[in-house]
Amino acid sequence: VVKREVIKLITPGTIMDGKLIVEKENNFLCAVTRFEDQSYGIARADLTTGESRVSLVSEQDDLFHELASSSIKEVVLSPGWTEEDAHRLRQSLSVTLSEEEAEDLPKGYESLCENVEQPKLLRAFGRLLQYLLRTQKRSLEHLQPVQYDPPNEVMKIDLHSRRNLELVETLREKKKKGSLLWAVDETVTAMGGRLLKQWVERPLLSKKEIERRQGLVQSFLDHYFEREELRDELRHVYDLERLVGKVAYGNVNARELVQLRKSLQRIPAIFALVEKIGNQDVNERLQTIDRCESLVDLLEHSLVDDPPVSIKEGGMIRDGFHKELDTYRDASRNGKSWIAELEQKEREATGIKSLKIGYNKVFGYYIEVTKANIHLLEEGRYERKQTLTNAERYVTPELKEKEALILNAEESIVQLEYDLFLQVREQVKDYIRPLQALAQMISELDVIQGFATVSETHHYVRPALQEDRAIAIKGGRHPVVERVIPNGEYVANDVDMKDGRSILLITGPNMAGKSTYMRQLALIAIMGQIGCFVPADEARLPIFDQVFTRIGAADDLASGQSTFMVEMLETKYALQKATQNSLILLDEIGRGTSTYDGMALAQAIIEYIHDEIRAKTLFSTHYHELTALEKELSDVKNVHVSAVEEQGTVVFLHKVVDGQADRSYGIYVAELAGLPNVVTERAETLLAELEGEKEIVASEKEV
Amino acid sequence: VVKREVIKLITPGTIMDGKLIVEKENNFLCAVTRFEDQSYGIARADLTTGESRVSLVSEQDDLFHELASSSIKEVVLSPGWTEEDAHRLRQSLSVTLSEEEAEDLPKGYESLCENVEQPKLLRAFGRLLQYLLRTQKRSLEHLQPVQYDPPNEVMKIDLHSRRNLELVETLREKKKKGSLLWAVDETVTAMGGRLLKQWVERPLLSKKEIERRQGLVQSFLDHYFEREELRDELRHVYDLERLVGKVAYGNVNARELVQLRKSLQRIPAIFALVEKIGNQDVNERLQTIDRCESLVDLLEHSLVDDPPVSIKEGGMIRDGFHKELDTYRDASRNGKSWIAELEQKEREATGIKSLKIGYNKVFGYYIEVTKANIHLLEEGRYERKQTLTNAERYVTPELKEKEALILNAEESIVQLEYDLFLQVREQVKDYIRPLQALAQMISELDVIQGFATVSETHHYVRPALQEDRAIAIKGGRHPVVERVIPNGEYVANDVDMKDGRSILLITGPNMAGKSTYMRQLALIAIMGQIGCFVPADEARLPIFDQVFTRIGAADDLASGQSTFMVEMLETKYALQKATQNSLILLDEIGRGTSTYDGMALAQAIIEYIHDEIRAKTLFSTHYHELTALEKELSDVKNVHVSAVEEQGTVVFLHKVVDGQADRSYGIYVAELAGLPNVVTERAETLLAELEGEKEIVASEKEV
Repeated sequence: VVKREVIKLITPGTIMDGKLIVEKENNFLCAVTRFEDQSYGIARADLTTGESRVSLVSEQDDLFHELASSSIKEVVLSPGWTEEDAHRLRQSLSVTLSEEEAEDLPKGYESLCENVEQPKLLRAFGRLLQYLLRTQKRSLEHLQPVQYDPPNEVMKIDLHSRRNLELVETLREKKKKGSLLWAVDETVTAMGGRLLKQWVERPLLSKKEIERRQGLVQSFLDHYFEREELRDELRHVYDLERLVGKVAYGNVNARELVQLRKSLQRIPAIFALVEKIGNQDVNERLQTIDRCESLVDLLEHSLVDDPPVSIKEGGMIRDGFHKELDTYRDASRNGKSWIAELEQKEREATGIKSLKIGYNKVFGYYIEVTKANIHLLEEGRYERKQTLTNAERYVTPELKEKEALILNAEESIVQLEYDLFLQVREQVKDYIRPLQALAQMISELDVIQGFATVSETHHYVRPALQEDRAIAIKGGRHPVVERVIPNGEYVANDVDMKDGRSILLITGPNMAGKSTYMRQLALIAIMGQIGCFVPADEARLPIFDQVFTRIGAADDLASGQSTFMVEMLETKYALQKATQNSLILLDEIGRGTSTYDGMALAQAIIEYIHDEIRAKTLFSTHYHELTALEKELSDVKNVHVSAVEEQGTVVFLHKVVDGQADRSYGIYVAELAGLPNVVTERAETLLAELEGEKEIVASEKEV
Repeated sequence: VVKREVIKLITPGTIMDGKLIVEKENNFLCAVTRFEDQSYGIARADLTTGESRVSLVSEQDDLFHELASSSIKEVVLSPGWTEEDAHRLRQSLSVTLSEEEAEDLPKGYESLCENVEQPKLLRAFGRLLQYLLRTQKRSLEHLQPVQYDPPNEVMKIDLHSRRNLELVETLREKKKKGSLLWAVDETVTAMGGRLLKQWVERPLLSKKEIERRQGLVQSFLDHYFEREELRDELRHVYDLERLVGKVAYGNVNARELVQLRKSLQRIPAIFALVEKIGNQDVNERLQTIDRCESLVDLLEHSLVDDPPVSIKEGGMIRDGFHKELDTYRDASRNGKSWIAELEQKEREATGIKSLKIGYNKVFGYYIEVTKANIHLLEEGRYERKQTLTNAERYVTPELKEKEALILNAEESIVQLEYDLFLQVREQVKDYIRPLQALAQMISELDVIQGFATVSETHHYVRPALQEDRAIAIKGGRHPVVERVIPNGEYVANDVDMKDGRSILLITGPNMAGKSTYMRQLALIAIMGQIGCFVPADEARLPIFDQVFTRIGAADDLASGQSTFMVEMLETKYALQKATQNSLILLDEIGRGTSTYDGMALAQAIIEYIHDEIRAKTLFSTHYHELTALEKELSDVKNVHVSAVEEQGTVVFLHKVVDGQADRSYGIYVAELAGLPNVVTERAETLLAELEGEKEIVASEKEV
């Protein structure tokens, strides 16, 4: 029995390779440390790229939302979490949980922490490293120095809103297709795809940085031909970031080093195209980038163009790179041609045309003669080696001698190639930092060209960012919905939220697009803050610090939370955290409880937002009674999704206009759905009665 | 270049093996034929078990619901489907679609159709066979004769209700855990698991057959020790059904035949235990079952206990089964011990203690001597074969001679074993029909013991099935929810729906369990009709022909259907199809539209069910105004989920009692969720105002 030691634990967060790694997604492992003051330290690392980051949040709710802002596969907890909290974490983020006690920074890793000093951050990062050392059982020198993400640098979007708005995956099917990410992804490299995902998950707050990105997009948009050529070049760039990760980790193979070389060979053309595009900001940065030309040289001379995946079977090193290797190869090749000649000679000597020389793993080289021809062989010269049904196989002393030569040469070649390859691999390690910088640059160029491409294809415009908190969108569209419905059928809508219009109360029939209108505004705001252009004819936007949404319903039978409780919890979170710089979307709040309770709560919530928070808010409702608030609250305006009745049928115009809806068309939808006539007719009668009562109440009040 | 022919197409419905096959799930391929009169023929087959069935439905809605009642992976359509219909099918069932033009019954397969005569059924089945022949490119003799499923033999549960009730998977995560199937699954074999899933998907309508199953469950329940022993025995039975499928298909290997033998060896003990349990019905059936003892004999004598997976490497056939094979084996074994002796002899002759004889694939057998000892070798006797860094490897003429003997013997062994194995495999084919009957019996015993086990563990009772359409449940529980909440916290509830109580109108606060109460009744009814006992203290139930539910919400952004449209479509389907023998669950109908529209529709729907359909109906609502209907409609009764206010806080009792709810506690839930006090206090004030208005209306009406 062979004694086996555990040499490495593979956990969801420490997978380096294989089918579980998604090309355009990071694979973050995250360590969460709960501190004595109930604040939390978060450290994350992607082993495949070597990227690592640390941040702090002050309470558990924020922790959940922060963790939701990147693709985390596994969370390592500090000890002392309750079953309940851990369960909540696992459920809401769908991650694997692990635990790590140690949190002191391991010796020898101080250099990774040159960017952070705060003890909490060091403890958080220490836990991550300790866990990695314990499971990986090897040095972590391939990690890049840790980056600190200060709070308040990115727009906060809570977990529910991320899901409801379908930022990176759809709500129900959990697929990228149908998400905002899908709509804006025109990247052509895997690393560009990953950076884009990071950007979508973390929209910016800095006006300067957003406008820098916008400027770049504009430059790329203005140069169609250069951009198309650039896309073609980028398509030939492999996943530099993960290739460099493998170089650093020390498990890169020859085929991957050739991919690295081929990618690097595209750099001059790429940079030349970008220079032609002529954005000053990016061109200055290009000057500072090392193009690793000497590495290209090394790889070109050392490795063949199409080496095998295995590094233990030879066939990797180029002829001419190493003298001794060339000598062995000559020997092997000569031996083989000698054998081909021998076959010819033997045929002539024996007169057996079907005589052939073959090779198999068990018997080595042999001369095969069919049984019918055996009598033609000269006696004593051929030694029988193997008997087949119709033939005999022989060897001769000369054949055996050459065989030994060939086999020995081949063994030496394999060994020597392996040694040479390891040397080359070590040399490549010297280029890790410049390669990482290069990968970063290429990723960013890819995302920017993607923004330019998608903006051109779908007629997006550059939003103007304003300090005055006003929203003015003309002809805005939902970036996903406009793509999935038939061409030309999407109805664009304006959003006008300037002075005196900070809360819009939306009424109107179902199926007319209230939710789409609300989501559309949030998505346009997010697109604006990641630096992309937006689906509209014109857009003026403020910079939102946070986005809150309460849209759609999600009953969770087993967890025991009813729809309405979820609704209230999400609303509470919004009311607690929102500022006047936030965007709040509330869809039919109160629907989950009885009529009057719901109506009362909805009104109280609107009043609170209006008086206390003053955030920009879209509030859709089926309580038409609430439209009276327009008269009482100065910043509330009624809008509705319009419909017209023509010859007894209703046409939904999907157009949002000022004023309240006349009626809700619920019974009309029921007719469309095919409910029996007797039901809908009876409903019409009942409705008339109910509305009659309302009028009585109204007149009663006037009295 | 080797010329390759397509020998087989593997599609989702024709996978035979590997990781994509789930143990406890069938893998149905289904062919759908649309006839000229807009009716549809459905033919399905599970290639892994050989099972095949045909049925007919009269319209497209029914087709969808029928297809949802079994685990279908792929649907083969007749030509002429519109893009739109095909898309709907793919979307709602998550299946792969294929097309097949031919529908005539292929020659030679008439014997599979002995049970069906109707031309439509033959066309449907013909299409399935044609597709299989075209993709599998081989005979389909392993299919069992097709079974006809007449309509109206099973309870109809539409697609939405199956999902909402979470019969075989949960709504959101699509996992078995948390479903009804999960709750009742105490089967211990894969085939029992599959049969159980079929039963859960297709509850019965025949009182006689349901009571037959109940009787069996009761017998098993009464014999705890025999049942536990039976479970132990069953755990050792492999997946007979799929093993037989492989025998029939002709790709079974030796390891699987040993699994078959080991499973068959459990049969006598299993049958003896069942006989002890002593249910007359099942014991009579046991008499008719062939236990395949002669097959056990054959397999025991022919195959070793632990053969390899590959059938081309020998090591399968038992010593003593075949003389010639035994002879070869002797030769090989003798040769090997001769070599061991030679090593000893050579060490003595040369005086080299470290001398050893080894074997590798390239050079065969060799004598290895370290370089330090080479001078000790007698010259001329050893022929150098390979040079290592520290040693040389040699052969001698005798060694080579024995090597040829050993290798030749081994080659012959492998070939002969392969031939013998194929003969055995052919013989096993004669047992296919009795094996299938045996597998069917074992599956059923497993499901029944599982019902008995789950009924005992969770205190289920045998429901009494009544002809009088009355429902009387005492202490009913939700089979899933009672498992996932902490022990003892589940509050059981009665259902009383006898004369004058065919529609229950449920009001009460959120989070108090209205939806759970409704689902619970449907699940109890379904459990009763699959023959299982039910989670209650006492239960009298009618046999329901159909179950309809409109519970929960599912907004589908991209498809453009709003919540309310979905709500109305599902309601329409229920109103159209339900009979007085159906069960209808409607949860907050009207919630998706404006207040008065919704209220009017809800009332009109209740009236329609009351006057026209007379189905048993649970209707939950937030429109407390509807409770007045109790006075107007004779069969409507108000019930509510109770809560008590104690010292300013509300305690939900989760108990359903007669009468309408006092209030809805929506504002209380908002307080629980932590909404700012200023909001909830203001809501209280507004609510008081609104309720004041209502009273005015009421008094106005009385005037």
